[in-house]
Amino acid sequence: MHKSKLGGFIIDCQTDDLDRAADFWGGALGLNIVELPGGEGDFYKRLDDAQHGLDIEVQKVTHPSRVHLDIETDDIEAEVRRLEKLGAKRIQAIQSWWVMEAPTGQRFCVVGAASKSFAEKATQWP
Amino acid sequence: MHKSKLGGFIIDCQTDDLDRAADFWGGALGLNIVELPGGEGDFYKRLDDAQHGLDIEVQKVTHPSRVHLDIETDDIEAEVRRLEKLGAKRIQAIQSWWVMEAPTGQRFCVVGAASKSFAEKATQWP
Repeated sequence: MHKSKLGGFIIDCQTDDLDRAADFWGGALGLNIVELPGGEGDFYKRLDDAQHGLDIEVQKVTHPSRVHLDIETDDIEAEVRRLEKLGAKRIQAIQSWWVMEAPTGQRFCVVGAASKSFAEKATQWP
Repeated sequence: MHKSKLGGFIIDCQTDDLDRAADFWGGALGLNIVELPGGEGDFYKRLDDAQHGLDIEVQKVTHPSRVHLDIETDDIEAEVRRLEKLGAKRIQAIQSWWVMEAPTGQRFCVVGAASKSFAEKATQWP
């Protein structure tokens, strides 16, 4: 048995100016920007969502801009297999997570559980 | 003075089979599907996000599939003007809401406040 839930979403921005992209989205959503350490900070800035407890990040990407959802789980392989049974496809393993594609075409990621409310709010799968 | 916050997101699906799209996303996120009344139900199905209090809907669309964010507000015109100052552009007024485009290219909507936690959690703008 494992658990999963919506972890948050990543605002993928095709830009060379991550600071400016994060400034826009932080201002638009009324969320403070959190600097991330080391190499992570070169590509991601977190928006502090105390309102809903989601992990929201602005990411510098080279593909066209979009928004993608993250599903967080305590067992990535089990969750990926569950999502495959629902019709999703594995696209690429990156570091600790999987990029998947929904039957309706959107890319999304399956990531390790990180939210404070995960144990309380996640769905337990048989 | 007006207020706004992230209202939720719409999972736009380029499909003729809204039921199947909602079944996938409800199953993937572990959220129950809520049928919407009348003509709205022909294009939208709500996913009941008791976990975070977001408005999450699956929408049948004719453009390529994507995910778009909704910003909810108690004054749509004031919020649209605030977002224009941040660099967003008005794209189209639809019924009661505005479709806008971020400087980083993503489309998003500015909609009337509807969440239970709006009064408590929204940011008040000067």
